[in-house]
Amino acid sequence: MPTDHPPPQRSRLVRSGTQPTSSCTSLFAALRTATSDGVGITRESYGAGESLALDIIEIEARANGLATERDAGANLVVTLPGRAPILPCLACGSHLDSVPQGGNYDGAAGVIAGLIALCRLREENFVPERNIKLYALRGEESAWFGCAYIGSSALFGKLTADDLALPNVATGRALIDCMREAGVAVDRVARGEPLLDPVSVAAWLELHIEQGPVLVARKLPLAIVTGIRGNFRHRGIECLGEAGHSGTVPRWLRHDTVFAVAELITRLDRHWRTLLERGRDLVMTSGIIGTDPAEHALARIPGRLRFSFEARSQSTETLEAFYDLFRSECAAIAEERGVRFVFDRRLDSAPARMDETWIARLRAILRDMNLPDEPIPSGAGHDASVFANAGIPSAMIFVRNEHGSHNPEEAMEMDDFLLGTELLCRALRDGSAA
Amino acid sequence: MPTDHPPPQRSRLVRSGTQPTSSCTSLFAALRTATSDGVGITRESYGAGESLALDIIEIEARANGLATERDAGANLVVTLPGRAPILPCLACGSHLDSVPQGGNYDGAAGVIAGLIALCRLREENFVPERNIKLYALRGEESAWFGCAYIGSSALFGKLTADDLALPNVATGRALIDCMREAGVAVDRVARGEPLLDPVSVAAWLELHIEQGPVLVARKLPLAIVTGIRGNFRHRGIECLGEAGHSGTVPRWLRHDTVFAVAELITRLDRHWRTLLERGRDLVMTSGIIGTDPAEHALARIPGRLRFSFEARSQSTETLEAFYDLFRSECAAIAEERGVRFVFDRRLDSAPARMDETWIARLRAILRDMNLPDEPIPSGAGHDASVFANAGIPSAMIFVRNEHGSHNPEEAMEMDDFLLGTELLCRALRDGSAA
Repeated sequence: MPTDHPPPQRSRLVRSGTQPTSSCTSLFAALRTATSDGVGITRESYGAGESLALDIIEIEARANGLATERDAGANLVVTLPGRAPILPCLACGSHLDSVPQGGNYDGAAGVIAGLIALCRLREENFVPERNIKLYALRGEESAWFGCAYIGSSALFGKLTADDLALPNVATGRALIDCMREAGVAVDRVARGEPLLDPVSVAAWLELHIEQGPVLVARKLPLAIVTGIRGNFRHRGIECLGEAGHSGTVPRWLRHDTVFAVAELITRLDRHWRTLLERGRDLVMTSGIIGTDPAEHALARIPGRLRFSFEARSQSTETLEAFYDLFRSECAAIAEERGVRFVFDRRLDSAPARMDETWIARLRAILRDMNLPDEPIPSGAGHDASVFANAGIPSAMIFVRNEHGSHNPEEAMEMDDFLLGTELLCRALRDGSAA
Repeated sequence: MPTDHPPPQRSRLVRSGTQPTSSCTSLFAALRTATSDGVGITRESYGAGESLALDIIEIEARANGLATERDAGANLVVTLPGRAPILPCLACGSHLDSVPQGGNYDGAAGVIAGLIALCRLREENFVPERNIKLYALRGEESAWFGCAYIGSSALFGKLTADDLALPNVATGRALIDCMREAGVAVDRVARGEPLLDPVSVAAWLELHIEQGPVLVARKLPLAIVTGIRGNFRHRGIECLGEAGHSGTVPRWLRHDTVFAVAELITRLDRHWRTLLERGRDLVMTSGIIGTDPAEHALARIPGRLRFSFEARSQSTETLEAFYDLFRSECAAIAEERGVRFVFDRRLDSAPARMDETWIARLRAILRDMNLPDEPIPSGAGHDASVFANAGIPSAMIFVRNEHGSHNPEEAMEMDDFLLGTELLCRALRDGSAA
């Protein structure tokens, strides 16, 4: 479904003969300039900035002789045709939207890496066995509609009526209306009809900046993602004890909720350490905690404390085992300290495993490039988890990046990015024949 | 300085021949009826309810043939004259003010017990060696001016200009103005002049309901107070770590303030248990704790946590030793977890020791009454600590009471109160000769 977008109006940014650094720097600069908000960049999901970013990539792809189209999800698809287009294609890409006042690399790095890789393969007159496709996806960030991976979820018919009714946080307009305006076939999406048949995709490769601090801390330019962590969450657990005068109630008569929850967290921390030593993948966080401002006081034993709790792992089994441990410690502390824990609804998100064959292939290429072939888990979610959970063998490349993501201070070195692009390019070349 | 109050207008509530229960029930009922607010009772410090309560006690004292006066602090003083009035007097009493919607026994129990004791001694034609005085004090509760023990502090010249300028929380009127209206010699108070020479008081005995749960839990009708706990306090300590995405930062790169403070509190709890086992007197509380609502989130590692911390003990040495331990644990955790603790000003309140000779005398009388002679610390503050810290040998009798204090649900059994009155009466008889 090729679109009738205007033909490219400007000179090519990805040029043969020039330094590769200069090509990617120019592309990132073009995106930044077009979608700057004065502080960072803003590319609203199914909004103007995102559409502009897709246009810039499309123009550049065409200028380099690549075929482009917009799919039924209004995503940009760039194709390097293979000898046997009937075979399931090899797909790469990432998203082009951003959080408000976000960074230029979160998402865009994967799209630009894919574009440079496709341009290079074409320039080398490499003809793959199967089609190689680059997806510039829309709607990955949850910042706009409170729901993440909208673009990839729509591709696989995974959006519910509730999702489609979600209001844009800024304008209040429903997601379905914003999607329609961007060109999405919303009737099919609303019916839960897949826009992309998973069987038609042999693999999904996604390059992304690392959003955590591990690669910087370990001095690794790149890493291969082993899996994307799932999680269980409680938004607000209440610990109920007994309030009282801080001076008059001795230790043996106390039902102090702050001491109870402190002990709970400390015990869980000890289990965490042990589980890590035993090779389990796990992180845990209590991001929100607080006594009740309506009744707390310096000299009052806190009779009520509310806290959130979340654990993440690549392994469903680890999550379940840890959840049982968590509830068991709550019960033990409740009994020992005469407090009660009142739990809100448990929320879950399933882990996604990356494909073993692809992980092995990517690590082999890294070794061939004389780079460390470290595998690491992804703690943040990515479109790759949606592709993987749709049954498509998926893999991810992390590029070293400082200061996290979702902020204008994210910092990826171009040298690291070029190594990542090289890895992606080689993987596409090798994998398209497989 | 006898006042020209009107003569008693009503029949005596404390009567010889009647059941003692009926006398005290009538007196408590008279106070309750006069100062009821519909929910509990309200006797504002240096306000109408407090003055009314003093009047009721004074009328009753006169009806029973006891001399009364108002001192320069506008407190009511009832005297049973001794053979040698030149000797330092033996004083007993408590306060008659209350918190808003408070209970009828907090304070008043000590005044009514003293009145019944004096009436009984007079009825028995007991003539003490030295004068026995009952003080019905004003202004003990901090609820009205944010400052406790105003009445007793004024007696010993301990109120500062800042104290006297404190506004009433309800009306905004300055303490000094409210005191002047109630009849206090505010010029002397403002000069810091003692209104009562500590040398003129041989001892201070105060009966009070227990504001904690210990006597109920241990099934003791009465207990002798060994000391009034002092404390150190920090209103708001800040723990500063590093915020981050909850999924992407592994344990070894975390600087999580919730885990840090949880460990701190758990370690202090362990020390607390050990110190109690070694016979130290200590309670500790973190009444206020919370992540910052402006930045906290379920999936964000908390980079900032604020908490209050307070410890109380009868021993200054224990407080100091524990404060060092507390700071040392903060430093250890800061180093281990890569967080920082920022401390606000340390606030202190000195413990007050009760007099050993009086404790021994009260315990001996309890044994003679076939009652357990349990000594317990007072966690809440009392006028007795002001008397003790002014150099006057002081002692306190706690009466069993359920549901704490400062609320209309406080529950003291009349049988327990009568045992306390009996103990006070015997102590005054024995002690006035000493």
